[in-house]
Amino acid sequence: MSFEAAVHAQAIELDRLSLEMTAAAGSGHPSTAMSLGHIVTVLMFHSMRWSPEHPKYPTSDRLVLSEGHAVPIIYAAAAKLGVMVGREDERRPLRESDLATLRQADSVLDGHPNPCEGFPFFDTATGSLGQGLSAAAGLAAAARIDGIEKRIYCIVGDGEAREGQVAEALDFIVDQRLTNVLPIFNCNGFGQADRVSQQQSLERIKAKLEATGYTVREIDGHNPSQIKAAFDEFAGISAKDNAQPMAIVARTVKGWGSPTLQSGNYHGKVVAGDALQRALGELAERRTELTSSLASSDSFMIQPPQDAPAREVMIGELPPFSEALKSRDMTSVLHSGRLATRKAYGIALQQLGHANERVVVLDADVSNSTYAEDFARDPKLAGRFLECKIGEQNMFSVAAGLSAAEKIPFCSTFAKFVTRAYDQIEMAIYSGANLKIVGSHAGASLAADGPSQMSLPDVAWFRSFATMRDHRGNPGCYILQPADAYAAYALTGVMAEYEGCCYMRTLRPETEFLYSDDVVFNLGGFEVLSEGRDILLVAAGYMVHEANKALEDLDRAGISATLVDLYSLPFDAEKLLDIANQNNGYVLTIEDNYGASIGSAVADALAESGEGFTLDQMFIQRIPKSAPNPDEILRMVGLTHEDITQRCLRLLQVVSA
Amino acid sequence: MSFEAAVHAQAIELDRLSLEMTAAAGSGHPSTAMSLGHIVTVLMFHSMRWSPEHPKYPTSDRLVLSEGHAVPIIYAAAAKLGVMVGREDERRPLRESDLATLRQADSVLDGHPNPCEGFPFFDTATGSLGQGLSAAAGLAAAARIDGIEKRIYCIVGDGEAREGQVAEALDFIVDQRLTNVLPIFNCNGFGQADRVSQQQSLERIKAKLEATGYTVREIDGHNPSQIKAAFDEFAGISAKDNAQPMAIVARTVKGWGSPTLQSGNYHGKVVAGDALQRALGELAERRTELTSSLASSDSFMIQPPQDAPAREVMIGELPPFSEALKSRDMTSVLHSGRLATRKAYGIALQQLGHANERVVVLDADVSNSTYAEDFARDPKLAGRFLECKIGEQNMFSVAAGLSAAEKIPFCSTFAKFVTRAYDQIEMAIYSGANLKIVGSHAGASLAADGPSQMSLPDVAWFRSFATMRDHRGNPGCYILQPADAYAAYALTGVMAEYEGCCYMRTLRPETEFLYSDDVVFNLGGFEVLSEGRDILLVAAGYMVHEANKALEDLDRAGISATLVDLYSLPFDAEKLLDIANQNNGYVLTIEDNYGASIGSAVADALAESGEGFTLDQMFIQRIPKSAPNPDEILRMVGLTHEDITQRCLRLLQVVSA
Repeated sequence: MSFEAAVHAQAIELDRLSLEMTAAAGSGHPSTAMSLGHIVTVLMFHSMRWSPEHPKYPTSDRLVLSEGHAVPIIYAAAAKLGVMVGREDERRPLRESDLATLRQADSVLDGHPNPCEGFPFFDTATGSLGQGLSAAAGLAAAARIDGIEKRIYCIVGDGEAREGQVAEALDFIVDQRLTNVLPIFNCNGFGQADRVSQQQSLERIKAKLEATGYTVREIDGHNPSQIKAAFDEFAGISAKDNAQPMAIVARTVKGWGSPTLQSGNYHGKVVAGDALQRALGELAERRTELTSSLASSDSFMIQPPQDAPAREVMIGELPPFSEALKSRDMTSVLHSGRLATRKAYGIALQQLGHANERVVVLDADVSNSTYAEDFARDPKLAGRFLECKIGEQNMFSVAAGLSAAEKIPFCSTFAKFVTRAYDQIEMAIYSGANLKIVGSHAGASLAADGPSQMSLPDVAWFRSFATMRDHRGNPGCYILQPADAYAAYALTGVMAEYEGCCYMRTLRPETEFLYSDDVVFNLGGFEVLSEGRDILLVAAGYMVHEANKALEDLDRAGISATLVDLYSLPFDAEKLLDIANQNNGYVLTIEDNYGASIGSAVADALAESGEGFTLDQMFIQRIPKSAPNPDEILRMVGLTHEDITQRCLRLLQVVSA
Repeated sequence: MSFEAAVHAQAIELDRLSLEMTAAAGSGHPSTAMSLGHIVTVLMFHSMRWSPEHPKYPTSDRLVLSEGHAVPIIYAAAAKLGVMVGREDERRPLRESDLATLRQADSVLDGHPNPCEGFPFFDTATGSLGQGLSAAAGLAAAARIDGIEKRIYCIVGDGEAREGQVAEALDFIVDQRLTNVLPIFNCNGFGQADRVSQQQSLERIKAKLEATGYTVREIDGHNPSQIKAAFDEFAGISAKDNAQPMAIVARTVKGWGSPTLQSGNYHGKVVAGDALQRALGELAERRTELTSSLASSDSFMIQPPQDAPAREVMIGELPPFSEALKSRDMTSVLHSGRLATRKAYGIALQQLGHANERVVVLDADVSNSTYAEDFARDPKLAGRFLECKIGEQNMFSVAAGLSAAEKIPFCSTFAKFVTRAYDQIEMAIYSGANLKIVGSHAGASLAADGPSQMSLPDVAWFRSFATMRDHRGNPGCYILQPADAYAAYALTGVMAEYEGCCYMRTLRPETEFLYSDDVVFNLGGFEVLSEGRDILLVAAGYMVHEANKALEDLDRAGISATLVDLYSLPFDAEKLLDIANQNNGYVLTIEDNYGASIGSAVADALAESGEGFTLDQMFIQRIPKSAPNPDEILRMVGLTHEDITQRCLRLLQVVSA
């Protein structure tokens, strides 16, 4: 059987299965899937070098389906090829009969690509659009770091190409000369509610790609030879380091093969009953027209991946902070007694870089503010630093790709700008990514630049993930707020050792040392800085210092306060309740961000105990503006140590009155 | 004095003031400001048609400074021109002597553009990069809707142009043929940590703009005649409806006029002491070289805006829901007793569109899912519908621009995809935008599509804004979760009447009616659906129905439960505590999203009361996956009515044991 005929037969078979599995599920996007039948056939049955038996084999070529709703076409191919599915300890080949379980509660075939639910062929969860190309770039960057000659294919929808993140990813790929990633734009001309904009027409996408620095091949996405030729060309380019990266724009038909599905808008609509029979009949006719053969996987020879190189990855630990300072001739810092937590993060990053080869660092043009530059400027580490420029969405999805390739990506930028990528971070968490997020200039203490640079609702958002469990059974995210340089340094190391998502907030101002090399910091832990008996103050980050000052005022007023540095969320609630009980049940929380954050986490614990605690929360209750320094911004938002003292006095008097 | 000479003299004066004010503030970005001296001079002193006395005059041309950190150059021009500043009731002209107050706590001159702190020349807050061009497009779209011939200038940094949102905005401008907005790319070649990427070189930006459909003019951004000629050309294009939109790429010098500032990287660094004196000296030399004149505003004649047309804007109210259904021949729905809240939103939108001319609607290619299509397809309303395609970041910043022009923008998409634009929404709140956000397919009840389409940490994020106050003294955001169609319909009307930000979650599945036309819904309110005495159940949205079912099971078990539909956050805490007290202090909250949300809001209230309440929270504690229907997804995450009943029984027994 000719290649042409074999591809047509197989593509039509995948189309048929896509129609049937979505009909069985009662939902899904068969028409989008059918626009990709030929491309996916050529990729998965011919061009990719991979192994259905070992879908995550390290040297395998990878396919990222950025337009995740087209996933039935991949499931169909996977069933034909017997790709291994299931959780790690119970892998088995996917069968055609499994396809009818699409979208069932206990199926490995989730509604959108979802590696953590038992479909390891995928590296990251997609379905929230525009993120796949960045993840593909992350996989490509990891391969380059590891010296693996591996190709990454990424299918992007035309309507999806409107997402600005796609432009960020395209720039990043050129910047990093990632010739080993191939964006394939599926130009079927339709979005969900309507046709795609003329701004996302094939011609426009092609022109934009060329202007962005790509060699672009335009193909008929249902012509097997054209598809193969383009992939062959890419194979040549991907091996070159200094070539211009390549992209494919493929003219495709939504609901290809079935005139029924091409009339009206069938986006996201299953085809059932008579319409299904008609569509299946049309597909069968199309097959007779194009090939005399029935589909058979025997017509193809999948090229296996190269053997994975035996490599020892060095994974060591951080030296103590004081040693790190000494090794950098920074002992004067030890004597000064103060250092900004963001600077301690930079020092830790550099040490970690040398100690742990899996660590990679990404930043978004603010490495001189976040201090990720300490890593970037070290000649031995520079190859593992990826400058993402001012495109935060791309940065976090690149990190998800790097994580899928076993890297430990640390991403830093201003905590405020991390917000840009919350959807990407959420998808990374769903992908099981081992993501380390470091937001600098957190809270209000950066002062002078004003609210456009302050992160104020961030703790609330990440805390939401701290209330649930990821696929490993761990909190969806740990939120870490080091109050001093020792804590920031140690927690950077703790993050690297932990497998899962963490969000650490670092501070702009210099802060005094509270700790030493001897203090051990743990995820879920907290530190009691001062033990009293009348009231428990709970603070984190910059506010620990302000609360510390309040202790003296309170002492003068005859009040013995306990101070807890709640540097982690979630935290050991039982232990904190014990301390609250030792303080007559009075608790005051203090944080320089909006509410629904630390105070609320403490409220959760207190309210669920059923005991009569009294909680008062201090947080930012207005939109701040610029002020020249931390003291003035705290005055503006009512969070100085005087305010804390007053609030304690009021709380204790009012209630005892 | 020649135009050339006058511009040079004025630009150098603005540069000088930028240097001096940042030196006084001790922070800021003088070198970026100085790259814009000439462009800002030609704009504000010559090309813009506006009035320094009435900086928000409706027909005035507008300037959006997307790279907000360059703001000192605008403040300098504003001081020279005596632009009115201050809160609405205390406007006064800005003076040169005010410039030294830059970034002070009580200054109208915030660190980044901040209209709500007394600088009404700006329409929106900027400083988080990449958002200004979208806001400019919103202002331009509003002008078109209002039939005002008005030009919108927007300055975008070259490094900033990496943000994908800029690409989204550029596409949107072409889609909407907004020839009245002019993007000006300030290509000074430097970002913060380093030079800009070659992907953001002037040549590359120009090529991308041309590929995107722009007429591009390249100018020397320090050459007055070239700047003026480009603006003149734009004036011609902006008057035409079907022209290709225009963009300017300006080659500029960071720290123009001062070799001192051009050596090394002075991004975000103030110049003080000797360096300041040297830089000032260099600027003075430059002036002598270029012009014999000192700066004088008399050299220019600012063209005033046209008189604002006297227009009556129709602002009416929503008819009752049942009437709306009748007018749409949908009375069968009344009899069926059920309708999805997203559909009720669509019906309300259409009614609102006819009742209130300020209402405009935006959607992101999912209007057939959110039901915004009910508005879009009404021929009388279609002109106020803006299809943003799959570019959510742009959509929300466009809305901020529309709001600044007195529109009431309703933006809808899947609640999950709203996440893409959290940073944009935050900036819109800081801009005082009257933004209505409607996230459909909220929570887990959409079931089949899986977690990539579910909004689960969204309530936590928006709740953070519900804990603080905006510039009007209102909650930064109201979160609304209608449980039935009556509530969704009525709350859509309530949102339109309220001035400020609201986030409403609508649901995919059909839900039964709980209410009638007679029920009044309020921001901050809740409804008691069933009055009991043993335990208070608090739920919202889809979970109200599940809790409702649990009431019967509980009744059979001899437990009399109260059910509150907490459709608003924030809510009347005191009133809820009273009800909790009437139920022996037992409270169970139920929500189909992650924690830190409704349950936590209730915990806040209970814990602060100091009384011995007992709270148990039910929320989603794992990453969901696809399931075929709401019942199965609720089973997966432990939120069925049986689960609720069991939890109540356990809570009451354990504690009474």
